Amino acid sequence: MSELKLSPDRFFDPNPSVRKIAREIYNSVKSLPIISPHGHVDPSLFSENKPFPNPTQLFLIPDHYIYRMLYSQGLATLEELGIPDINGNVYESNPKKIWDIFASNYYLFNGTPSGVWLDYEFSQVFGIKEKLNAKNGMKIYEQLQKKINGKNFLPRTLFDKFNIQALSTTDAAFDDLRHHKKIKESGWKGKIIPCFRPDSVTDLSNSKWNESIKLLGKSVGYEISSYKKFISALEERRTFFKSMGATSTDHGVFSAYTHELTVKEAEAIYNKAFKGKTTPEDARLFTAHMLMEMARMSIDDGLTMQIHPGSFRNHNEVIFNKFGLDKGCDIPMQTEFTFNLKELLNKFGNNKNLTVIIFTLDETAYSRELAPLAGHYPAMKLGPAWWFHDSLEGMMRYRQMTTETAGFYNTVGFNDDTRAFVSIPARHDVARRVDSNFLAGLVAKHVINKSEALQIAKDLTYNLVKKAYKL
Amino acid sequence: MSELKLSPDRFFDPNPSVRKIAREIYNSVKSLPIISPHGHVDPSLFSENKPFPNPTQLFLIPDHYIYRMLYSQGLATLEELGIPDINGNVYESNPKKIWDIFASNYYLFNGTPSGVWLDYEFSQVFGIKEKLNAKNGMKIYEQLQKKINGKNFLPRTLFDKFNIQALSTTDAAFDDLRHHKKIKESGWKGKIIPCFRPDSVTDLSNSKWNESIKLLGKSVGYEISSYKKFISALEERRTFFKSMGATSTDHGVFSAYTHELTVKEAEAIYNKAFKGKTTPEDARLFTAHMLMEMARMSIDDGLTMQIHPGSFRNHNEVIFNKFGLDKGCDIPMQTEFTFNLKELLNKFGNNKNLTVIIFTLDETAYSRELAPLAGHYPAMKLGPAWWFHDSLEGMMRYRQMTTETAGFYNTVGFNDDTRAFVSIPARHDVARRVDSNFLAGLVAKHVINKSEALQIAKDLTYNLVKKAYKL
Amino acid sequence: MSELKLSPDRFFDPNPSVRKIAREIYNSVKSLPIISPHGHVDPSLFSENKPFPNPTQLFLIPDHYIYRMLYSQGLATLEELGIPDINGNVYESNPKKIWDIFASNYYLFNGTPSGVWLDYEFSQVFGIKEKLNAKNGMKIYEQLQKKINGKNFLPRTLFDKFNIQALSTTDAAFDDLRHHKKIKESGWKGKIIPCFRPDSVTDLSNSKWNESIKLLGKSVGYEISSYKKFISALEERRTFFKSMGATSTDHGVFSAYTHELTVKEAEAIYNKAFKGKTTPEDARLFTAHMLMEMARMSIDDGLTMQIHPGSFRNHNEVIFNKFGLDKGCDIPMQTEFTFNLKELLNKFGNNKNLTVIIFTLDETAYSRELAPLAGHYPAMKLGPAWWFHDSLEGMMRYRQMTTETAGFYNTVGFNDDTRAFVSIPARHDVARRVDSNFLAGLVAKHVINKSEALQIAKDLTYNLVKKAYKL
Repeated sequence: MSELKLSPDRFFDPNPSVRKIAREIYNSVKSLPIISPHGHVDPSLFSENKPFPNPTQLFLIPDHYIYRMLYSQGLATLEELGIPDINGNVYESNPKKIWDIFASNYYLFNGTPSGVWLDYEFSQVFGIKEKLNAKNGMKIYEQLQKKINGKNFLPRTLFDKFNIQALSTTDAAFDDLRHHKKIKESGWKGKIIPCFRPDSVTDLSNSKWNESIKLLGKSVGYEISSYKKFISALEERRTFFKSMGATSTDHGVFSAYTHELTVKEAEAIYNKAFKGKTTPEDARLFTAHMLMEMARMSIDDGLTMQIHPGSFRNHNEVIFNKFGLDKGCDIPMQTEFTFNLKELLNKFGNNKNLTVIIFTLDETAYSRELAPLAGHYPAMKLGPAWWFHDSLEGMMRYRQMTTETAGFYNTVGFNDDTRAFVSIPARHDVARRVDSNFLAGLVAKHVINKSEALQIAKDLTYNLVKKAYKL
Repeated sequence: MSELKLSPDRFFDPNPSVRKIAREIYNSVKSLPIISPHGHVDPSLFSENKPFPNPTQLFLIPDHYIYRMLYSQGLATLEELGIPDINGNVYESNPKKIWDIFASNYYLFNGTPSGVWLDYEFSQVFGIKEKLNAKNGMKIYEQLQKKINGKNFLPRTLFDKFNIQALSTTDAAFDDLRHHKKIKESGWKGKIIPCFRPDSVTDLSNSKWNESIKLLGKSVGYEISSYKKFISALEERRTFFKSMGATSTDHGVFSAYTHELTVKEAEAIYNKAFKGKTTPEDARLFTAHMLMEMARMSIDDGLTMQIHPGSFRNHNEVIFNKFGLDKGCDIPMQTEFTFNLKELLNKFGNNKNLTVIIFTLDETAYSRELAPLAGHYPAMKLGPAWWFHDSLEGMMRYRQMTTETAGFYNTVGFNDDTRAFVSIPARHDVARRVDSNFLAGLVAKHVINKSEALQIAKDLTYNLVKKAYKL
Repeated sequence: MSELKLSPDRFFDPNPSVRKIAREIYNSVKSLPIISPHGHVDPSLFSENKPFPNPTQLFLIPDHYIYRMLYSQGLATLEELGIPDINGNVYESNPKKIWDIFASNYYLFNGTPSGVWLDYEFSQVFGIKEKLNAKNGMKIYEQLQKKINGKNFLPRTLFDKFNIQALSTTDAAFDDLRHHKKIKESGWKGKIIPCFRPDSVTDLSNSKWNESIKLLGKSVGYEISSYKKFISALEERRTFFKSMGATSTDHGVFSAYTHELTVKEAEAIYNKAFKGKTTPEDARLFTAHMLMEMARMSIDDGLTMQIHPGSFRNHNEVIFNKFGLDKGCDIPMQTEFTFNLKELLNKFGNNKNLTVIIFTLDETAYSRELAPLAGHYPAMKLGPAWWFHDSLEGMMRYRQMTTETAGFYNTVGFNDDTRAFVSIPARHDVARRVDSNFLAGLVAKHVINKSEALQIAKDLTYNLVKKAYKL
């Protein structure tokens, strides 16, 4: 048996002098409330507050970080892993069988952030005492099942226990936010806020664009038959989102290209699309134009704008055609920012009232493009190490490659960006440890002193995220 | 005099706690047999088993890592370094004169992998006690000459002494593998296997393509006058290579672009080429298509497929025109994988029976493209840090940038990829040390525990390479 | 109050064994003379040798590293920071008001090279004992003012105190070098030499090209009415610069593209430009051609050639239109070298009499393109970590990513590249510390031994720069 016991010094530099400082810095921030300004947790968890059905449904099914690893090793198909297909069919309905594959191959996660997060969740959230493996898999499954059947592991109870001060979901432009309403009406104090993500209606290359436009029309009560109505509808929806607590918008785009069209050009493209006649070039230009429009609206309504380009979505068409979106088949690509953001930053980047947070999956842009841009334009801030780079090494590279040019104060703190609710405290704990350790290194090398480091740690953990997202 | 004595702790982190763990991990793998699944050692070394003629011929002439450094400093021309030109002419035939240039400038290799490997070879293989320099150059030359004149330094003896379990050469599609045959027939037990590398016949832009096609025709006994015959010939040759022990194919390509042509399109391009009328676009498409064909054949015959794009070969035309290929003038370039591999991975990447190993000289692709792809597609694995990146820092960056997304188990162990036979144990020793040290860092930071690290070390050194190359 | 006291061990690895070696290596080089072969200090400082007017004029106004950070945080506009506009208007003329913004936000520079340099300047050059902050800002202002009013802080006195052996300015092709002359004639022994930077006349896309050509004409005494006269004028000016002590030329280009035009082609493009009819493609080709011409001239006259591509100048047009060049709005971009330098390196790169130093703002090129190129072509050398990468982490990445392929001896030592004269000793001190620390790491890991490290440190600090710039 391999004991599962987390070291209080985990992820800190093995050098005793750095470690001692890292410990002190970490201890000063570890109990600060969690702010989760960007993520994909399903709000129905909190409106319904039902027990999680079983460990497989809790840990594996919503987390493509996990099943992609099992899939990559040829250990099981997505069918065998119980992932529902695009029509909701489930080909393997025995959660224990799936858990067994996971448990037997848990060693694959050694050295990965998933391994680190899962160890935390098992140990710190569920009190499991052994590291998961082929032998103890079923025993641990039963232990977990027993816990989640009880009251102490209901979503709202965990939310409070995790000390989450605010959690943002991500929601389509036409979403009625019924779960957010229900949560508000329930009297529960947990702050679950929406985030306005209009990609499905701003991306003309989306195969369901016409469908989405109809849904947008329903949400505002009129047909979106012209570009002007489209813009009005978006403005109305932003107002609605804001009234429901939203403080930000989110834009997942193929490239970071920004470009303003004339109203006439935009109308012509919109009208073509409305008749189902979009070209790829139309879609490219319209997305670039809509980023400009969204920045303009953000200056009006104060919503913080987030842009994250550079993911080739649904790279594996075999999986996409059967299982749909978000199945671990999104692959990063080379991403250009200096040219692409120029038009947006030239028009809006000098405006102190705007906050545009830029994310990247292409780490080469950190020191080359993003830190220099964020280190100059008042409106632009750097999002944290994102997705594949939300990891021990990834976050370290992020600080090493951005701090010297952008400083700490043109960044915005940590985002967990997760669909896996119980991983939230694990992820924030890792981020706090990595930042504490990075700062400890600077102190030990006499780049900054300890009192400076303690202040920066607090800012990175809590103050910067509050400020950037106006929370 | 500067003593040449290798520290048992070399290349380990100076932190005592990390170093102690690294030492323990390294000690557990240092004596495992060497598997060298990809390299360029001349098989005639072992079929003929003659003594190496002199130290210059042994260390310098076959190793462009070494003479490129001397050339870059303007210390000598390739003529003065005794490199044979394209017609076999040698302009400097005094090996001692060449050795003197090398010895007098040995300090140039400080901080480079060549320096580290040479120190190992001199010290561990040849028992040299002093670091090479201008003063002791001739003395050491004589010491080396004496050794290689003796029986203990014949190629086969060294092969056994190096504890090499299998060594793969790299061979043209039309090669008759006479040396491999001769080795088999000799009764010597050393496992020297071929690898099928058809670049000279699949790359239509190769100036000697027509010549190569004729050689391919000779090797199968019929003229390769059509695309269909071309495909058949390749299939036959793969079968022959497999019968001679090959377990893999190797594809050195300009870009990683993959794309399937229709048979009609492929035939049209082939026919044009056969008449000597290839365009660059033809060549680009045909190479992309042949990668698809090679993957299809690999699913049929089980040969592991290796793709290594991204080298601008023969960048220095002055050198190329006089001295030909592989003279240290190949320069890496930006390399794209996400788009380029899509067609191959969509068609074949979900197939568990295929293994495609991808190499890169563009390290930016590690975390951005390659680890995400290998972390998803069952058929794809990541080749090790390659060529210029087969080095202390290069291998460390490789683990730091790939492990968190792809894990350890979507990688395939170490390749030495060398032309310099006696450098093999030196190179494997460095790889084992770097991996041991990387794992020790994870243990010291409590990311994994020591028993996990010991298992991973064994897998990285021995098990993964055996599995990936079916050895 | 926070004490400002620099640790003698600053920037060294916290590991005691590495730190001890780093200290020894650093102590062996810390007092070597400073050679500053590339920078932007105004030569009038030394010809006039007047006291600096006030701390704001000394530290803030000439240093866009500093005011860009304040601007990026939306703390003040450039107007409010006293930056003169394009017509010389100054909107805030109270230096104390500006200093107060700077002092109150000094914490923004924590973790940045500016922070590290400023601490050095305040402490080591001006004897300030407290770290700058909102409270002590005015007190420190007065302390600084008092010092710079005195004789000990005149430019020439500081130059001697800084132990600068040679300092190169950067000067337009048509500059009359009157300040350099005046310095020479003054009898003062300080070596201030010019560097020939002809960008304003070789870049046809420069909006003031025709104006610049007229100035070039004035400088040689004839109208530059043809391409041939243009070439002659440049040759004459190079001769003049050389007679004034120049040993190098400098070429800031958008891309590294090199390509030789026929004389006819070059003439046609020149004639069009002369009539004010340049196209972007003309400009691109002409710049590429002029790099070839400059290399040719360098072989003739022996001036070392510097090329630094990859900066998107004046990215923020709002700032550029009002304040002009060099206001912290230059943003790096992806930069390609393998293809772009091929023509230049094929034609001139094998020539031992040429030295071409290449700089990059795109760090991805270090290991992928630049180290392999510099590790092969005799004429090519690698410039040091540049601009945003002239920093603790940036210089460490530079050594880590270039040394293994190019070695130490295909690099050229440190450049401060600064406009801020008093930051020179601070910057060189950081570079010496980072290199000493990097070498100490190699010693502690037994990659090289200590006597080798001591020699390399001396070469990196002093010998290589002397050799590369022929000083």
